[in-house]
Order: sequence, then structure tokens, then C-alpha cells
Amino acid sequence: MTDRDQLSLTSRLLRDLGPEHGDGLRIGGVSAEEIAEQFGTPCYVYDAELLRRRCAEVTRSLGVDVLFAIKANPCLAVGQVLADAGAGADVASAGEVHVAMRAGFAKEKIQFAGPGKTRAELSLAVDRGVGTINLESASEYETLLRIVRERKPESPPAVAIRINPTVGVAGARMRMGGGCSKFGVDVEDVTALARRIVDHGVVSLGGLHCYLGTQVFDADAWLDSVRGLSDFASEVETSLGIKLDSLNLGGGFGVPCFEGDAEFDLDAAGDGLHALMDGDRRYFVELGRYLTAPSGVYLARVEHIKESRGKRFAVLDGGMHHFGAATGIGAVIRRPFPIVSATAPFESGEPQVVCGPLCTPADEFASTASLQRLAVGDLVAILAAGAYGLTFSPVLFLSHPTPAEVLVDAGKAHLVRQRGRAEDALRGQFLPGEA
Amino acid sequence: MTDRDQLSLTSRLLRDLGPEHGDGLRIGGVSAEEIAEQFGTPCYVYDAELLRRRCAEVTRSLGVDVLFAIKANPCLAVGQVLADAGAGADVASAGEVHVAMRAGFAKEKIQFAGPGKTRAELSLAVDRGVGTINLESASEYETLLRIVRERKPESPPAVAIRINPTVGVAGARMRMGGGCSKFGVDVEDVTALARRIVDHGVVSLGGLHCYLGTQVFDADAWLDSVRGLSDFASEVETSLGIKLDSLNLGGGFGVPCFEGDAEFDLDAAGDGLHALMDGDRRYFVELGRYLTAPSGVYLARVEHIKESRGKRFAVLDGGMHHFGAATGIGAVIRRPFPIVSATAPFESGEPQVVCGPLCTPADEFASTASLQRLAVGDLVAILAAGAYGLTFSPVLFLSHPTPAEVLVDAGKAHLVRQRGRAEDALRGQFLPGEA
Repeated sequence: MTDRDQLSLTSRLLRDLGPEHGDGLRIGGVSAEEIAEQFGTPCYVYDAELLRRRCAEVTRSLGVDVLFAIKANPCLAVGQVLADAGAGADVASAGEVHVAMRAGFAKEKIQFAGPGKTRAELSLAVDRGVGTINLESASEYETLLRIVRERKPESPPAVAIRINPTVGVAGARMRMGGGCSKFGVDVEDVTALARRIVDHGVVSLGGLHCYLGTQVFDADAWLDSVRGLSDFASEVETSLGIKLDSLNLGGGFGVPCFEGDAEFDLDAAGDGLHALMDGDRRYFVELGRYLTAPSGVYLARVEHIKESRGKRFAVLDGGMHHFGAATGIGAVIRRPFPIVSATAPFESGEPQVVCGPLCTPADEFASTASLQRLAVGDLVAILAAGAYGLTFSPVLFLSHPTPAEVLVDAGKAHLVRQRGRAEDALRGQFLPGEA
Repeated sequence: MTDRDQLSLTSRLLRDLGPEHGDGLRIGGVSAEEIAEQFGTPCYVYDAELLRRRCAEVTRSLGVDVLFAIKANPCLAVGQVLADAGAGADVASAGEVHVAMRAGFAKEKIQFAGPGKTRAELSLAVDRGVGTINLESASEYETLLRIVRERKPESPPAVAIRINPTVGVAGARMRMGGGCSKFGVDVEDVTALARRIVDHGVVSLGGLHCYLGTQVFDADAWLDSVRGLSDFASEVETSLGIKLDSLNLGGGFGVPCFEGDAEFDLDAAGDGLHALMDGDRRYFVELGRYLTAPSGVYLARVEHIKESRGKRFAVLDGGMHHFGAATGIGAVIRRPFPIVSATAPFESGEPQVVCGPLCTPADEFASTASLQRLAVGDLVAILAAGAYGLTFSPVLFLSHPTPAEVLVDAGKAHLVRQRGRAEDALRGQFLPGEA
């Protein structure tokens, strides 16, 4: 057990955000209170240096190309930091193609995945020169084939076939493969599809792709799936007499968001990976949450304090509409994300209910958060907020404005997403006859 | 058991949308296929006549004033239909104040509730002449008091005190009162607060408010809470020597969304209510889901059909990012909403998986929907989609465009919310230094 393991999750996350100060929470060296005063609350804050460090750790440990899964956080500024750090992008919609391009990811380093790509989305990808399309079905290939034949782009995308193996990865919190699935091509049908692609010769078959689940905490379980993909790639090569240049090994490395969660053992994954890598091939991992979750903090202020029958309620100006995952949306079991007072992040205190302003009891971050006794106007920080934050929240629920987003880099805080306004509730709407 | 009870939920919902036709689903007399061709998919469609009918049923059965809880569906056009039908509005944010005003609700018929009202929100309500503020805490009253003293509005809002009784309502799927709570003022503290309000004489104390839970299917359980509120109002009147002009009885009447759900017995609620109403007092109920859920349909097209190991998957062009509740977001137990093929809504067929395009297995509407064998291009309709649809969905998840919304009235379909564009993923975002 390392020293790291002995610290609580909250302490580890705070330590990663920067050295302890007597004067309250700092993010990338800038005081959380100053950020809140400058940009208002609620807001998300991301630490650029921590994003770079995570990306470098993965590259160093695994020795493969890293793709940032935009879906985890489609903040342009976050994407730009990772693009500058050398990452490519995994995108899953036309909107994410726009985000990846604007954030500065090299187009040949963009891979487009997703089981429901429309004709319009595939056309956009072809027109914009997206490097690789990860095919999830034979029918998707037919659509792409027609588009490329019609448009005759100068450099058509390569394709990779996402495989659906017979079994999923053990220990993933959410499985996305194995058995029958909307994801990928059943492994027994892959060779036939690969042969069609090679025979047509319209797009080049770059390789294979496998993504079996998210929040995988067991490096050995992940390595098993990699081994399976690697062995299968050799089979396809033998039966087709071709070389597959690249394998996308998926990702889904677990990130601790709740006390008691383990850390994914990156070095063990790297050691296992090196043993089975083929020097002639490029390998990719696609990571979203793993790269960005620890770098993010959601800041909100206490709007009301209320005592009800002996329990203390701190009602924040932000809630589940901004950070649904931290209120348990999408989780089977509701557990609290790490929450601290920005004034005294390392202090615990009395148990308090920390909740949002919405008219639902589901809008609650913690029912017994042990933190410094909060007062109206206090700033509260929810940690591990850099992934599936705003993007996985019902932002229109109760028609509140969206929060600002701030990137801290080299000791300076930059506004990177404009705060919404109450009037946004009317955006795009007409009364009958007005359209 | 009535004839109505013997029909499946799907049949009941279809029947409410209009008479059966041989030529596929119609909404308010207009063909769903024509609506989809005209406005594209995915889209939400609302039947104006059905909204009016629900509102009239409640008014007739209960004999009270009806408030539409905007949070259930902040679509302006839906609000306008209900405002024209005589309803007032229950709002819970500044954004909802804007929606209610723009939809045409008379300002004196607007009541502002919610446990996290900010100073800015209360100021807006005072400036715009919102009729009643439902106070959820003593500290909120202090804020309001300061605002009214500073701004000296011509007609300051009345206030009602939302009470938190000692016990919640039995049988609610989600409780919002009883025990210690972020909602309302503990009943034992209400008289003291009421006295302060009366003594100050700055805003008038209109009455009391009680809202104990949503999806209450048992009329007797609801009547118990009404009786409790009514008795308590008399106590407050006696101890303060005043008359309370109004009681807001809450609502939360259950709406069947899943097969097997009962119908709330509106007539029984009405009969019970008449027995305890005081002729000198105004009574309000606030209803959201109950008014709008059955009138809404979510339409999406089959983008891909995929067979995986013997199972048939229909991947739609819409999913959990548009209609999260129908994929189980927010539910403890995932159950399917009623789904039909728009071509043959009354036919069942083979079991199919009906899912959305997102990269998560959670994006699934039904794992064994028994409906007509779907093909690429087919139109699928999810029923009971008029409440907590778009508004309770992670619309930014995977950066897909928001759907259009359409109101059908008097045999004509009107676009009432513009479809989003893929480029919207960039909206409000900057790179560092650009802001």
C-alpha cells in the first residue's frame, strides 16, 4: 500500500489540484474564492496543468497514442489543452466533430465512433477530413461507401471495425459489449465485413476497435480484452492476407469519484501491454473521464441555510441541472462526490445536507457531508468534476441559466464558457404562427 | 372496473390522442408521418385539444383554480394553451417567470415556489408583478422584505407560506415533505413567521401552501394532506385572529406512464374536496405532469437496424439526450414508456430493442418492445411524452442538436421550437484569451 492509498479520496484530489494553502482552496495556483468573485457562481473550473499531467502519465505508462473522448467534456478549452499535449480525439456526433476541429485536434487524429451515425454526420466527417471512422455495423459501412463514392474526397477516411466479442470485460461498471449488443459488429461477422471493405477498395481498412465498458478498475480485466482483440486481429490478418495497421484498444479506465474507489493501475496496464504489442502496428487508447475528471471543480455558493427539525440544510445556487452525476443521476446507488468548503477544504466539521435549489429531493449532493459549518455566502467545491459534469446534466430542468466554465493555466483564470441568462429559457421558442 | 381500466395503457393513450385510423398514428387529427416529413425528426408533438380537455376535467371535477407547473414543460406554446384555458402558472425560477409571462399567463395568477430562490430571482418577480411568492423559509422572507422595502413596488406580491408537516403523503413516488426537509417551513414554526409577516405589513399574507410529493396515485392519501392543511389553516387563523384567503393544495396527481399504473381518481378527489372547502376561501391545485403528459408524443426515425446474435436492434435518431425519463433517468426501476410504430400503432409484433444513438447502453427505450417489425426509415412514437421530456434530459450529452417541438391545434401543425444545429455545441464557448 502506497502513501497515496492511505489518503482519503478527497485529500488525494485536493493534493493533485495543488499544494495545501492556509488560505483556502486553490485550483492551478489560483484562489477558488477569487475565481468565484471574478466569474460568478455556479461555475466549473479546470486545471490545465493537471490535464497535461494526466495525458503525459498515460502516454508514458502505456506507450500508445491517446485519444481524448470529447463526450466526457466537450469544453473547447479542455480539448485544446489535450490537443496541444499531443492527444487525438474520439468523437461521437457531428457536434463533437465541430468541437474537436475548433479545439485544434489534427483531423487525421480524429476517430469517429458511435452506433447511430446518421448519413448527415458521416457526410460531415468525410467533408471535414476526419481521419478514421469506427464502423459499428455493416449498414453503416454501406452508407459510408455511398457517401465516399458520391463525394470522391481527396483523402477518404480510413475505417476501423468495432468488434463485439462474445463476452464483455469483467468488472466494468457499465458494459458495452459481449452478448448481443447495439455496439460493434459481432466478432463472427467481422472477417466477412473486412473482406468486403478490402475488396471494394474505396476506403482503407485501418484496423479494429474494441470498447467494452466504462469505469474498469481492474487493469488485468482490461488487458484480457486487449489480448482478445490482438489475437483476433492476427486471425483476420491471416484469413485475409493483409496487415492491420492499427488497433484501438478502447479505454474506460476507472477514476475514483467516491470514497473507497481504487485507482486504476496504469503501470500494470502498461507492463501487460508492452508484452503483447506488435512493433509494426499503431495502438490507441481512448480516454475521457480518466483524463479530465480529477482536473475539474464545480463551485457553487450557499444561497440559503435552513434548519429543519435538527438538520442543517445548505441550499446552493447550483444543483443537479449543472452536475447531475454528483446528485446520482445515472447511478444505481447514490453516493456523494467529494465536497469541501473552499474556505477550509481540509477541515471536516458537522454533518450537513448540501443540496441544490430545484423543486425535487433528488437535487442533493450529500445528505451527511462532514465539512466546515457552512453559512450563507460560503463557497462550496465539488471535486472530480471534470468529466460528465455539465454534459450529463438536465440543463433545461427548471429553466435555470447554464454555469460559466473557467480554465486555469499558468496561474491565470480564463473564462471559456459564457454564463447563461434567465432569458435563455425562451431561446428557439415561438408561439404558433410566429415561426 | 370501467371499460377504460380494461384497455392497456398504450390503447388508452392512443385513444386520447384521437380516433383510430387505418392509416397510422394521428395526433390531434394530423398524421404523425406528415408532421415528421414537414418538421423532421426527432421532434416532440403536443395535442392542444387534449391539453384543454385535461385542464377542463380538473376544473370541473375539483372546482378549484388550476396552476400549471411550468417545470413539467416550459414549452411556450403549451403554456399559452393552458393560460387561454384559464390556468395560472406555478413557476420555480427566473427563467420560468419569463416563460410564464411570454406564454400569456396573467401575472396575478403566477405563483413563485422553490427552495433556492435567489435575491435576483425574487427581485425579478417583484419587478414583473408576480402575484404570489410561496415562501420556503424564514430567510427567504427576510430577503423578500428587503427587496420590497427598497423597490416599493406599486403592487407588492402576496406571500403564502409553504408548510412542511410532520409526516409526508403516503403513497407518493417521490416525497417532498414530512420529517426534516429542504422544502417549506416546519409546521411548528409557521405561526411565528405568519405573525412576523402580518406585523410587518409590508407584503400581505395570502395563505398557505403544501406540496408533499409527485406521482400520487391515491386520491385519499392526497385528501389526507389537504385536510391537514385545511385544519392547520384554521389554527393559524384562530391564533392570529386573521383570515387566510387562499390555500394552495399542491398536486402531484399520478399519471400512468407504465403499463399497470392506475389512473388517479379525479372525481373521488373532487368529492372529498367539496366536503371540506370553505366558501370564503380560494383554493389552488398545481399540476404539471397531470395536465401535459398524455398530450405529448416523441417522434424519432429508425436510423439503423442491426441484428446481433439473434436480437433485433432498432437504433433511432433520437435518444436519452432528448427524452431521458423514457430511458429510465431518474427512476429507481427502469420500465419502458409506451412505444408504437407510427405506421401501425395498434399492432404488436416481434420483440425488438428500441434504442438511441448514444455511446452508452443506458440509451435504450425498451429491451423487448413488442411492436410492428421495424425497418430503416420507420417512424417510432413514444407516448406519455408531454411532461419532463426535453426538460429532464441531458441535452448536451454527446453534443447532438436539440429536437424540434410542434403544437397541433385545430387540425394544423405549428413549429414552436426550432430544431438545434450541430454547431450549437460551440455556443457560448471560447478558447482562452478569446472572451
